[in-house]
Amino acid sequence: MSTTVAATTQAERQAYYERIAAQRLTPLWESLHSLVPAQPRPKAVAALWRYDEVRPLVMQAGAIISAEEAVRRVLILENPGLPGRSSITSTLYAGLQLILPGEVAPSHRHTQSALRFIVEGSGAYTAVNGERTTMHPGDFIITPSWTWHDHGNPIEAEGGEPVVWLDGLDIPLLVHLDGGFAENYPEAEQPVTRPEGSSFARFGHNMVPVRHQVTDPTSPIFSYPYSRSREALEKLSRHGDIDAWDGVKLRYVNPATGGWPMPTMATFMQLLPAGFEGRSYRQTDATVFSVVEGRGTAHIGETAFAFGPRDTFVVPSWQPLRLSADADAVLFSYSDRPVQAALNLLREERL
Amino acid sequence: MSTTVAATTQAERQAYYERIAAQRLTPLWESLHSLVPAQPRPKAVAALWRYDEVRPLVMQAGAIISAEEAVRRVLILENPGLPGRSSITSTLYAGLQLILPGEVAPSHRHTQSALRFIVEGSGAYTAVNGERTTMHPGDFIITPSWTWHDHGNPIEAEGGEPVVWLDGLDIPLLVHLDGGFAENYPEAEQPVTRPEGSSFARFGHNMVPVRHQVTDPTSPIFSYPYSRSREALEKLSRHGDIDAWDGVKLRYVNPATGGWPMPTMATFMQLLPAGFEGRSYRQTDATVFSVVEGRGTAHIGETAFAFGPRDTFVVPSWQPLRLSADADAVLFSYSDRPVQAALNLLREERL
Amino acid sequence: MSTTVAATTQAERQAYYERIAAQRLTPLWESLHSLVPAQPRPKAVAALWRYDEVRPLVMQAGAIISAEEAVRRVLILENPGLPGRSSITSTLYAGLQLILPGEVAPSHRHTQSALRFIVEGSGAYTAVNGERTTMHPGDFIITPSWTWHDHGNPIEAEGGEPVVWLDGLDIPLLVHLDGGFAENYPEAEQPVTRPEGSSFARFGHNMVPVRHQVTDPTSPIFSYPYSRSREALEKLSRHGDIDAWDGVKLRYVNPATGGWPMPTMATFMQLLPAGFEGRSYRQTDATVFSVVEGRGTAHIGETAFAFGPRDTFVVPSWQPLRLSADADAVLFSYSDRPVQAALNLLREERL
Amino acid sequence: MSTTVAATTQAERQAYYERIAAQRLTPLWESLHSLVPAQPRPKAVAALWRYDEVRPLVMQAGAIISAEEAVRRVLILENPGLPGRSSITSTLYAGLQLILPGEVAPSHRHTQSALRFIVEGSGAYTAVNGERTTMHPGDFIITPSWTWHDHGNPIEAEGGEPVVWLDGLDIPLLVHLDGGFAENYPEAEQPVTRPEGSSFARFGHNMVPVRHQVTDPTSPIFSYPYSRSREALEKLSRHGDIDAWDGVKLRYVNPATGGWPMPTMATFMQLLPAGFEGRSYRQTDATVFSVVEGRGTAHIGETAFAFGPRDTFVVPSWQPLRLSADADAVLFSYSDRPVQAALNLLREERL
Repeated sequence: MSTTVAATTQAERQAYYERIAAQRLTPLWESLHSLVPAQPRPKAVAALWRYDEVRPLVMQAGAIISAEEAVRRVLILENPGLPGRSSITSTLYAGLQLILPGEVAPSHRHTQSALRFIVEGSGAYTAVNGERTTMHPGDFIITPSWTWHDHGNPIEAEGGEPVVWLDGLDIPLLVHLDGGFAENYPEAEQPVTRPEGSSFARFGHNMVPVRHQVTDPTSPIFSYPYSRSREALEKLSRHGDIDAWDGVKLRYVNPATGGWPMPTMATFMQLLPAGFEGRSYRQTDATVFSVVEGRGTAHIGETAFAFGPRDTFVVPSWQPLRLSADADAVLFSYSDRPVQAALNLLREERL
Repeated sequence: MSTTVAATTQAERQAYYERIAAQRLTPLWESLHSLVPAQPRPKAVAALWRYDEVRPLVMQAGAIISAEEAVRRVLILENPGLPGRSSITSTLYAGLQLILPGEVAPSHRHTQSALRFIVEGSGAYTAVNGERTTMHPGDFIITPSWTWHDHGNPIEAEGGEPVVWLDGLDIPLLVHLDGGFAENYPEAEQPVTRPEGSSFARFGHNMVPVRHQVTDPTSPIFSYPYSRSREALEKLSRHGDIDAWDGVKLRYVNPATGGWPMPTMATFMQLLPAGFEGRSYRQTDATVFSVVEGRGTAHIGETAFAFGPRDTFVVPSWQPLRLSADADAVLFSYSDRPVQAALNLLREERL
Repeated sequence: MSTTVAATTQAERQAYYERIAAQRLTPLWESLHSLVPAQPRPKAVAALWRYDEVRPLVMQAGAIISAEEAVRRVLILENPGLPGRSSITSTLYAGLQLILPGEVAPSHRHTQSALRFIVEGSGAYTAVNGERTTMHPGDFIITPSWTWHDHGNPIEAEGGEPVVWLDGLDIPLLVHLDGGFAENYPEAEQPVTRPEGSSFARFGHNMVPVRHQVTDPTSPIFSYPYSRSREALEKLSRHGDIDAWDGVKLRYVNPATGGWPMPTMATFMQLLPAGFEGRSYRQTDATVFSVVEGRGTAHIGETAFAFGPRDTFVVPSWQPLRLSADADAVLFSYSDRPVQAALNLLREERL
Repeated sequence: MSTTVAATTQAERQAYYERIAAQRLTPLWESLHSLVPAQPRPKAVAALWRYDEVRPLVMQAGAIISAEEAVRRVLILENPGLPGRSSITSTLYAGLQLILPGEVAPSHRHTQSALRFIVEGSGAYTAVNGERTTMHPGDFIITPSWTWHDHGNPIEAEGGEPVVWLDGLDIPLLVHLDGGFAENYPEAEQPVTRPEGSSFARFGHNMVPVRHQVTDPTSPIFSYPYSRSREALEKLSRHGDIDAWDGVKLRYVNPATGGWPMPTMATFMQLLPAGFEGRSYRQTDATVFSVVEGRGTAHIGETAFAFGPRDTFVVPSWQPLRLSADADAVLFSYSDRPVQAALNLLREERL
């Protein structure tokens, strides 16, 4: 036997490939470079959705279909590089959900984890595990994997307003992992069994119930109000704790573990002081940003995206990002960092 | 404002969908059921590769291309449900690699984790981190994420034989996560700096070096020899520890953490005593089996697959599996269970 | 050889014991029952210190010695069952520290962890790691192991008042573990490098700095203000979450890990609504209580201790405790529970 | 108010101390330096027990009392610095246990963790959780906290011999923590329900049962045979992996967690090649050594202790240790390192 392989023609190889295909075999050596690339080559591309362009379409959805018929009346922000895949990054989903006064989005549960980041309007609620939480712009709300949840927008004496939030879910990840389960609740709304604020009182004050056992990786706080997050950022900004890449950036934590609020998605909020000119960095967790306040520019790869309040933009894996702010800007963001970290794949490079 | 939405025609909706598509928006309500299914609907299907059919094609590959030209001379076992995706399950890759006496598969590293399960032949080696380990049928060998590794089949005085192993990698998962990085080593073979058996001596005896700090989730043992695994199964089988679903089933562990040997792949070995008629179960981690010894049948969903030594078969996510054995059978298997577990998605159902 | 041992006289045994004593050997069988008891037999006893009796003595200490000369002007609450051991339980120390307006307790550090629970007075501070935190009654403040810390009571324009707090340390534990190290800071006061509130802004709002790495088990928040803890208890009490043994009881957590605020001491705060008649329980972690508000009775073993504001009492290991409240009562407490838990020794029994 | 304290005489202070003593109060400032020392000042001292001196006394114990009457016929190695405390270090106990052919040490359980390191003789067994393990010199055997265990030395056809082992327990630690519970089994011997070797087959081969859940911190392997540990040390020694302080040193691990084999005690085995002249180091975990093979010297602080086979010696906390070997020496050792580590107190200094 010898290591010398007689020269084979491409035609011979092609014939061989067809022969083995019948046995459901393919040659690795023809695809090795694309399967095992030198560095990430995401199909997702950088993109920004301007809220002033998107908002009218969201409102029109309110006339096209009811929340009840739609179950969830959401316009998916679909990455142009991932057509037909209902994805904003390879693993994440983003959509703008509208709920009008008087509507209810009926109760169901699924293994997909979901976050709601309130973009416009107040007074709607999300109900999770028998407790409702009222929405205000900038609030970050969780509906944990496999928990019943419904949304509503009650008509109060004083009227009501349309409420729009950004839905962030791990739908594409679970499609890929074949891990999706779902069920509908027998009623449109689950019964309310605990007063609003119960979860926060039990877990939100750097204290937890003495006999609480952590059995679920998802945070037991399901609302992180903007007022508190904004206050923390403001204070640190005044203290001058400004990072050259991030400005002032905090990550939300599960107070019962110190870990991520959900097992598949990390969430962040950061403040870029007026005049901030950030340095460039890249990381393997593609990230979706939602602008809360202020104006600035996101340089993603070679492209500059001007952003303003309520805009959404996405940064693909390993694309350099550089942020700057004209006025004090507050950005919420989410990514699949817990997945990357749990699998020991997370890489970051500060340029 | 009211919750009543005027009836809209399908045509009106379609026009709306086209309008929003220009803004890279799509309606969730048209795809909700496929995105958030009631239970997993994997595209992967059950399949079995008979070694007596596959082996001749593997050997022909040795005449079609050299190991050096191919870099890795592997025939990918491609799931018929995932054509063109070089995948045996949605997240995992499987291939049969051939290395002939005198050949070297050159050194490189990548973030993909890899396992080698030796199917046929002895005397080849895998080198990892400056240490070689010699292959024997049934051995389970690891090449951890981002470590230099090369394979060789030295021609010794006594000749040599072709060696074939099953490669198991998380390639499709890393494609999906946009987490792939790779580099070639400047030489075909990395230098050998430690004698064979060093890692096992340091970590294989239920003892570890006193100052070892765990910084990597991958097992520091990179060879789990068949002789030892077989002995454990044999002993437990004689003790009568037979599970009605699994027979005698052990999972390989990282001795420095008690966890999985790799952060993305679990590996198992089980013994089904002759006459075993297992009960049915299903789990969300699609699993690839390689038969080491014995004969039997794998009932996957509605299909029965007879298996014999060196065959490979795959069980998709959430498909019921029932195993039986005509003669004492030993099965090696691997799945993405660590991923499912880390993300809190793992479900199992014993029927 | 045989298992029959010839009858030996007590005198023969005694002679043998003396013979082996010369080799530093003693017979286990003479002490087995006391070394390995059927259940804990703590030397510590239940005790209560009435603040109205103790306060005058604390204030006299201010005339006996200066804070600077004393380094720490503290009256140790010494358990009557542990005379001469400066201990309130077998592992814990408690003392009342007084600092008068204008005084400084000079900066040092030690491996002992310390908590300060403010009993009386406002306006003094503890400085830790370059940041000062101002004390108010009911605040729980940490000085972590091996961090520089000093205390002061600045004379402001408006005057000032004596401030008294309960010091809780793991001194007896570290004596037993031979684990104590200590150093004095070259100056009386460490430099202030961060504005008050920095740590809380970074870690107190269920968010943490995005690049924070946990390297220390102690909480990065070093003040847990009473106003917030009280608010949480109040809310839960109104919601009716009353446990039959504990009333409403929360434990303080390290927000970066979800674990105990210090590696050796757990801290708790609970509210007993007026009229609460708790059920009896016992646990292996002896516990020190400090009364913040209200009046009631602690039944410890066979003894009833009436308690009022600012009193301190101690419950030994495995002694049944039953709490009742005449008026809404708030109790702070601390124990060595993290030690018991880490060593898998914690037992609780609800009677 | 002012920080100036009028000069007080020592007599005035003494009168004050007496006054406060009536309220169970003592002044910290009189004892601060001994309570919070600059570095550990252990009461335990370095000591060595020569087996040729101790062995005759151990054998005499066999004539003084039966195993059954004694329950455990053990001579405690009592540290000369800790008289009357049945302790070899402040937290650990060491004793030499003798069991004669035909004897049984009756079954009981306690929360104290125990290790048995076999010093002399073969053929006796320890039974834990329904499984017996046969003892050979150099084997390290565990009886986990709160598990039934008994020891026996069956008279086989071929006779039998006295078996002596070193008992290592955390008795003084549990006395201090008030954490001891104990119970006797109704019979002298617990029933045998699993064949010898079951636990090792399930956990000893770097594999664990697929459905095993870790619920106990103690290792599920309860015997670590000397033959395997010796082989690992031998191989590494030949590979030249010699540390300048430790020689070749491994720690035993719980294969289900990678952690210590018991929550309160670490165990180690090391090989010092003939001619080894180690460098000096000190650590906060006082350590007990048992010599398996070889001869050498342990320099502890200022004292040199010559050691030979089966000798026992103890190194107090923070005492410098320097080891040298005349002939290849194998040392087993144990300490309270898991306690020091869990409480973040462990310090090591290599000199």
